[in-house]
Amino acid sequence: MDSLTPNARRTALQNRYGAAGLPAEGPWNDVIATMLDHRSVRGYKPDPIPDGTLETMIAAAQSAATSSNMQWTSVIATTDPAKKKILAEIAGNQKHIEQCPLFLCWVADMNRHVTISAAEQVEFETMPWLETFMVACIDVALAAQNAVVAAESLGLRTVYIGAMRNDPEKVARLFNLPKQSFVVFGLCVGYATEKAEGEVKPRLAQGAILHRERYDDSTAHDERKAHDEVMTHFSARHELQASTWTQRVLNRLGPMKSMNGRERMRAALGRLGFEIR
Amino acid sequence: MDSLTPNARRTALQNRYGAAGLPAEGPWNDVIATMLDHRSVRGYKPDPIPDGTLETMIAAAQSAATSSNMQWTSVIATTDPAKKKILAEIAGNQKHIEQCPLFLCWVADMNRHVTISAAEQVEFETMPWLETFMVACIDVALAAQNAVVAAESLGLRTVYIGAMRNDPEKVARLFNLPKQSFVVFGLCVGYATEKAEGEVKPRLAQGAILHRERYDDSTAHDERKAHDEVMTHFSARHELQASTWTQRVLNRLGPMKSMNGRERMRAALGRLGFEIR
Repeated sequence: MDSLTPNARRTALQNRYGAAGLPAEGPWNDVIATMLDHRSVRGYKPDPIPDGTLETMIAAAQSAATSSNMQWTSVIATTDPAKKKILAEIAGNQKHIEQCPLFLCWVADMNRHVTISAAEQVEFETMPWLETFMVACIDVALAAQNAVVAAESLGLRTVYIGAMRNDPEKVARLFNLPKQSFVVFGLCVGYATEKAEGEVKPRLAQGAILHRERYDDSTAHDERKAHDEVMTHFSARHELQASTWTQRVLNRLGPMKSMNGRERMRAALGRLGFEIR
Repeated sequence: MDSLTPNARRTALQNRYGAAGLPAEGPWNDVIATMLDHRSVRGYKPDPIPDGTLETMIAAAQSAATSSNMQWTSVIATTDPAKKKILAEIAGNQKHIEQCPLFLCWVADMNRHVTISAAEQVEFETMPWLETFMVACIDVALAAQNAVVAAESLGLRTVYIGAMRNDPEKVARLFNLPKQSFVVFGLCVGYATEKAEGEVKPRLAQGAILHRERYDDSTAHDERKAHDEVMTHFSARHELQASTWTQRVLNRLGPMKSMNGRERMRAALGRLGFEIR
């Protein structure tokens, strides 16, 4: 495969880190090449997903580790234009949710376990804690990421939709979710339009995120400045308006309005039956 | 590759679901075969990880989607026997933490962003919310799962160690973590001993977790009973003492003591600087 030549490896790493931020050369294969080539795609052709592909994605998802084999994940697959339209609105009008042929909602599903508690008449003392809530969400994320890698290995593209959390109760009603289950995030799946295929997005150099034996952020400032420069070029190429990574962080984490109401999520989860002590 | 024959595909799906629970046949390739073959391994040879492999795992990890490109993940890599001994104790004496040649701690690192807030003198109003905490943990999970898939594609094995959360403060001190960062989970990485290589662990059939257009648990009871039977055979083969999946759920979620102190995690995270409103 072309993706396996030394040149392809160098190109993949340069796309991810910029020419100045390359990590040490390591092993390479098409599994790794698939992951390095990831980009989030926000424009889809109408072509449907081939038969059997969803089931293969779910098999990959279920093959991820699950804490104590508790299997907290459920998935709602929707292809219904009416449902996708409502979901797109909840997500602040993200048109790719309507456009993509398959939209997956990844559910932290404690209902499965609560049902067992009732059926077997055993009280589950471990349920109402932040720990258990977190474990369920992490389980869901591990599963979803395997599904993403499977999809991308088949030439499909995806984008996670965190904005399902803008209104967890409305999403839950739309899918008739039982108590103690909620959609952690959505996922668009489909074939990218040529225009939307885009480019791999650069990341901070490994020096900024990989620590050996102890946390060491002595190079963090310089790594951030280097990443700012890479991201300025990237945004100039793609969105016309140049922006550093620092500026994006300030825009995203500074003002309350960028949360799109998600400061109310904890209360909404309470109404959906989650205690998070 | 042998893993790509139709027989190998059927075997992989049978290992995952049992003969009676096979999903519809779908596409297949070695990326998917790698994921389907996952098992968590708790016994490692002393052989070190080849040079460059850690960097390749981190490149895969950083290639996963990260919400709004915020890049919340840091990783602490440790090979130090003294540190691994302490971590094994924190985790309730999990010997594989000492045994594995490389142990990775996956950090939800908000310190990186708090530092930017201070340097740029912009208040970050979005930080103290459950939403932001969750996003950081999910980011970490997506990244770690890519690293796991990369490692397994290279013949390495892994196991996630959630028990780092038994004492988040002690783990933070060990690695000199700054405020507003904590280890979400650990990960053993290495080559499995022959005895520990084990078998793929079965999961609930897809009918139990994949819903179309709306949540439907009308088959949940039957799927659970079928899974109980598969898991009874699995545990008889592996641990001599037969146990259904239902029994494992009761044991794990019923009694408070199975939390190993993690009901105190929220308070500990508070002391580490996290507000989770």
